[in-house]
Amino acid sequence: MSTTTPRSVGLVRAQTAVFESPLALECGTALPAYQLQFETYGTLNAAKSNAVLICHALSGHHHVAGRYSDADKYPGWWDNMVGPGKPIDTERFFVIGVNNLGGCHGSTGPSSINPDTGKPWGSAFPVVTVNDWVKAQARLADRLGIDTFAAVIGGSLGGMQALQWSIDYPERVKNALVIASAPKLSAQNIAFNDVARQAILTDPDFFGGDFYEHGAIPRRGLRLARMLGHITYLSDDGMGAKFGRMLKSGEYQYGFDVEFEIESYLRYQGDKFSDSFDANTYLLMTKALDYFDPAKPFGGDLVKAVSGTSANFLVVSFDSDWRFSPGRSREIVDALVAAGKRVQYAQIASGHGHDAFLMMDHPYHELMHAFLNRVHEEVNR
Amino acid sequence: MSTTTPRSVGLVRAQTAVFESPLALECGTALPAYQLQFETYGTLNAAKSNAVLICHALSGHHHVAGRYSDADKYPGWWDNMVGPGKPIDTERFFVIGVNNLGGCHGSTGPSSINPDTGKPWGSAFPVVTVNDWVKAQARLADRLGIDTFAAVIGGSLGGMQALQWSIDYPERVKNALVIASAPKLSAQNIAFNDVARQAILTDPDFFGGDFYEHGAIPRRGLRLARMLGHITYLSDDGMGAKFGRMLKSGEYQYGFDVEFEIESYLRYQGDKFSDSFDANTYLLMTKALDYFDPAKPFGGDLVKAVSGTSANFLVVSFDSDWRFSPGRSREIVDALVAAGKRVQYAQIASGHGHDAFLMMDHPYHELMHAFLNRVHEEVNR
Repeated sequence: MSTTTPRSVGLVRAQTAVFESPLALECGTALPAYQLQFETYGTLNAAKSNAVLICHALSGHHHVAGRYSDADKYPGWWDNMVGPGKPIDTERFFVIGVNNLGGCHGSTGPSSINPDTGKPWGSAFPVVTVNDWVKAQARLADRLGIDTFAAVIGGSLGGMQALQWSIDYPERVKNALVIASAPKLSAQNIAFNDVARQAILTDPDFFGGDFYEHGAIPRRGLRLARMLGHITYLSDDGMGAKFGRMLKSGEYQYGFDVEFEIESYLRYQGDKFSDSFDANTYLLMTKALDYFDPAKPFGGDLVKAVSGTSANFLVVSFDSDWRFSPGRSREIVDALVAAGKRVQYAQIASGHGHDAFLMMDHPYHELMHAFLNRVHEEVNR
Repeated sequence: MSTTTPRSVGLVRAQTAVFESPLALECGTALPAYQLQFETYGTLNAAKSNAVLICHALSGHHHVAGRYSDADKYPGWWDNMVGPGKPIDTERFFVIGVNNLGGCHGSTGPSSINPDTGKPWGSAFPVVTVNDWVKAQARLADRLGIDTFAAVIGGSLGGMQALQWSIDYPERVKNALVIASAPKLSAQNIAFNDVARQAILTDPDFFGGDFYEHGAIPRRGLRLARMLGHITYLSDDGMGAKFGRMLKSGEYQYGFDVEFEIESYLRYQGDKFSDSFDANTYLLMTKALDYFDPAKPFGGDLVKAVSGTSANFLVVSFDSDWRFSPGRSREIVDALVAAGKRVQYAQIASGHGHDAFLMMDHPYHELMHAFLNRVHEEVNR
């Protein structure tokens, strides 16, 4: 364990990397030029061997840790995991957070200006996939002079990127941490995504994706998508323990305003999200989830897909996660074992459901700490 | 077992019972007058002791079995369960199906004309609950001269009505069959309902519930509600076995049209439903689910709630049902056992999820048949 008392990385700032050469995408088109928004914490060592890439999930971004100003109400989304003395220790590692292509937090995405038209990309923005993101992240690594990552780490959709990294660039990934993830979506996973997408696509304020030019925002659809998504992030039991059947006003109102606390909570989450997130980005992120299937180019054989990897793997699942249940993580583990790879697997007891990968559950953080201690030793060997 | 080869009840017709005296509702208002649409199959015996009431679930109605004409494409919703030689044997029982108040299949509901205004009730239709439905069904029983039901039977929301019947009219229910149900909704159950409701309530074509006068139908909202509901009716494994990741056109299209078969199926279900169901009825049915909590008047004590019942109970759950999991049925069973009541419980192995209660799974139908054989013997004793 680290000897440092865990603390925040403090004040941080975002950086922008501009890429002028086209990026060929899986969908068949190319992005002529693009930029990636990213942040770094800690210091790259002289051997450039201590870099750690953190890949974000559906609604995440590059702002992983720290605050932009002392007035900031909230730190980055994984501040409990990343910082001096924390499992991803910024006194040991040079940590990179990056907003993915198609995002809405500074990297080129549907709300960015399309240089060809001078207007937001909107519906003209191409569909991007996990493969595309990994390729774009590799270019960013090149730009930063990082040949090999000590670790690529992600939860959920982020875990899919870590797995894809280990497959696409085996020589560039020493360790891959795949948390609360799955080797591909199930029919039920896709079904939930499709309801969320249909909510956005059928919102009259969506205007086929070109709502920017109409001064509109498809808030209703985005709000529904987030409410629905949120249900799948929490466990049934966790939701029961936190909200149960608690009534907003103590008694049944027999109407359609908020009746139960859980309704109030969900609507609040939906409202907040619909004010800050881009609807087209939401669509793209859910499609990237649907398309993810690293075994597909290998005839559906995940063992073959991971047979060329050379990373050490840590695969983590949470017992109350029903979005990507432990069984889904075990599919990854089984394939790695069958391919003769080094893999550690842990199923963590947590009431937090899928959201557990973002939470400060001690056994989970201790596990991450222990694994990354070994990574640190490896770096210094 | 019955000696009759199972067959259809054949051609049936719906009947209407008009009630001119007001019905006081749980919400505090009263329906001044109302009608109930119902169907009956089989013959009421001289002792009037062989009547069976079937209570419908969220999107159900009175048309339980048979066809209205030979040209009818589909029979009633529980035709596999109700008919000569079937578990609910119409050669033995006088079977009643009734559309609940607030419905959209002939009983007074939001799309009915409000006699005070000459316009559809719309937003003025009061919120109705399981208690109200049971009271209205009891009046229908009075009208038909039925003092005591040999059995009250229902699945899901229908099972809640069967349970409420046994509590509210203990002397009128000899047997209560509570299938794939729960003693109250969980926070997660309510959350799914609320997303469905918000989809309808925020549809610009909803017009606060008075869309009828605007010549509009909130199709988008109703479609989303149904798509979401449908996911919760199927099991993850069942959906995986039926659809998996099958693609509509064999290859990734990298766009927002239908990509996976599961999307095609869900959108079709949503479209079909939004063309035929009333949005206000959908809202009311989900609220009735949310409010159902027979233990509430007993300080939350379900044992006390069922302590006055005198029915024999059959409680049935399905192992792949995650909407109302077997654990929820066991809550009912545990309370009945603790109250010293006669109860049989079965957890049926089925891949059909919550929908299993409507399906022709043999162990389930054999169980129903066996239980209802005993009810039949009881009637003839």
